[in-house]
Amino acid sequence: MLSRRVVLPSLAAAAAMGAVGIAPPALAQAQTPLAAWSDGPTRQRILDFVKATTDQTSRDFVPAEQRVATFDQDGTLWVEHPMYTQVIYCLDRVPVVVKAKPELARAEPFKTVLSGNREAIAKLSLADLEKILVATLTGMTVDEFRGEVQSWLETARHPRWQRPYTELVYQPMLELLNLFRANGYKTYIVTGGGQDFVRVYAERVYGIPPEQVVGTAGGTRYGLGQQGQPVLIKDPKLLLNDDHAGKPEGIHLMIGRRPVAAFGNSTGDQQMLEYTTIGDGARLGGLVHHDDAVREYAYGPALGLPPTKVGTFTQALYDEAKQRGWLVISMKHDWKRLFPFDPPA
Amino acid sequence: MLSRRVVLPSLAAAAAMGAVGIAPPALAQAQTPLAAWSDGPTRQRILDFVKATTDQTSRDFVPAEQRVATFDQDGTLWVEHPMYTQVIYCLDRVPVVVKAKPELARAEPFKTVLSGNREAIAKLSLADLEKILVATLTGMTVDEFRGEVQSWLETARHPRWQRPYTELVYQPMLELLNLFRANGYKTYIVTGGGQDFVRVYAERVYGIPPEQVVGTAGGTRYGLGQQGQPVLIKDPKLLLNDDHAGKPEGIHLMIGRRPVAAFGNSTGDQQMLEYTTIGDGARLGGLVHHDDAVREYAYGPALGLPPTKVGTFTQALYDEAKQRGWLVISMKHDWKRLFPFDPPA
Repeated sequence: MLSRRVVLPSLAAAAAMGAVGIAPPALAQAQTPLAAWSDGPTRQRILDFVKATTDQTSRDFVPAEQRVATFDQDGTLWVEHPMYTQVIYCLDRVPVVVKAKPELARAEPFKTVLSGNREAIAKLSLADLEKILVATLTGMTVDEFRGEVQSWLETARHPRWQRPYTELVYQPMLELLNLFRANGYKTYIVTGGGQDFVRVYAERVYGIPPEQVVGTAGGTRYGLGQQGQPVLIKDPKLLLNDDHAGKPEGIHLMIGRRPVAAFGNSTGDQQMLEYTTIGDGARLGGLVHHDDAVREYAYGPALGLPPTKVGTFTQALYDEAKQRGWLVISMKHDWKRLFPFDPPA
Repeated sequence: MLSRRVVLPSLAAAAAMGAVGIAPPALAQAQTPLAAWSDGPTRQRILDFVKATTDQTSRDFVPAEQRVATFDQDGTLWVEHPMYTQVIYCLDRVPVVVKAKPELARAEPFKTVLSGNREAIAKLSLADLEKILVATLTGMTVDEFRGEVQSWLETARHPRWQRPYTELVYQPMLELLNLFRANGYKTYIVTGGGQDFVRVYAERVYGIPPEQVVGTAGGTRYGLGQQGQPVLIKDPKLLLNDDHAGKPEGIHLMIGRRPVAAFGNSTGDQQMLEYTTIGDGARLGGLVHHDDAVREYAYGPALGLPPTKVGTFTQALYDEAKQRGWLVISMKHDWKRLFPFDPPA
């Protein structure tokens, strides 16, 4: 666990920032904003930031067209354990791919995946994983891919909660998205996950339209199909690896503006938060800290736990967050409820 | 010139479509929409299309979030003769680049550019041009680049009109952009030109924000500068060649939705128009035809003129436009005025 000594100074700083005598916020949102967030300095600092950047009389006012807020997805907007959802999708697709190309059944890494041996699957190398991604994410039209993901999302269930993955989104973050949008911000997902994958459900689940989803992206090949219809075939060529330094690069490519606020949960988001927060004017960075082993998971070296295959919140990142004034959002303490649904008692 | 035999059938078809008995359009636009367009079937078909796709009672109604209209830039929104504006920019930048790297003064193609010999410059090969583009468009931060383009735009003048290039935009197309936007469409530029270049002025000139400019894009390299500030360095690596088949590919990458309407003026726009118009529901494609040698330029094989280095409107493209029902917008006949300014008498 993080020591109180480490946590307290940043809380004190946040509390001080929240107590500079601004009148009670009259934020443009019908109901109580951030209702699933505990009262406290984290919630207050977010409310103060949104108020300051949208109040024309504030020195931190940001013109409407520049109000861009970016959000990582895995571990920030939805659960990323025990594996990234998209990786589970790819593994689940392997039998279908092998059915179409039976010769793959005897080739690695497909043989291991088909064996269902979880331990062996967990040990697959990055190179193996890449073969699986290429086989399951490319070669079809973008429309076929969308249909395949949609079908999978309808039936796949998270092993712990036995619910569709798209229900395992964090209620506090949905409220945060809504708060920003209600105050004239454009909200973007900036994910290391596949852009085409996330776009399938982002509008329905997060209220974020496809054109505001920036993610790892491969090329497509355009042509006219056999019936003369336009088709775009998903290609293995990687155009954008939207993680780490690739996040600011992707933001420049796809948005062309520096965000005013950015939220993440791991070292993959470090450069996006630096890009967003270093500079003049009001800026807000936030990191979701998975420190709630009871309601969700607790992981990462910041908790003295071993690193995982998914997003890592390292001590170095924690130290940088403190130094740069980023919010460290404690899942355990800052969030009253985690999910839109009521968890089993 | 195009024969009347070729032109008349498409005009008749357009007139027929405009005469299906729809009540006078009550389009959401304060002043007369498309005021710089001549009354006639082209203007009417556009008005009818916008009305049909935004009228909830119409079978061609398009929900607001799907209203995407894409526009080529060079030759569609602004003048592309005698050369693409961005190429002129690159040539103009060569002396600055050579000043910083004097050894280039004796190396081709820089030597030729510095000579000022227009004939020799016009004969530069594509490989030469690429060297010039790399030298003048990459290696600096994106902020430095933006500043360089801004400064150039303030002083550079078009050789014929002696006005800033950003004034040589087509008034009818500005009105068309406004008409679409006033009716809930998101308007995008989808240009073979450089995305970073066009983004510098697109918001001011066209009302199109940077995140809605899709163009040819190179990579960037993110890092922290000497003062610890975030910097993105423009890299020669080409990510997206946003021309021909690259346009639908770029639209998928950057927007993730198929447009409902698309406008261009050359074979570089052919695939974007096919992608946009082939399919169910109301769809509109349009090509600007440069057939006005007096007020602007007339060029391309469709006019019996030799192909130029810039956008080509071939006979094959003209035939496809007719076959697919794309609007062929005659600059000479469909546009009452060309530019926002009053041309010299």
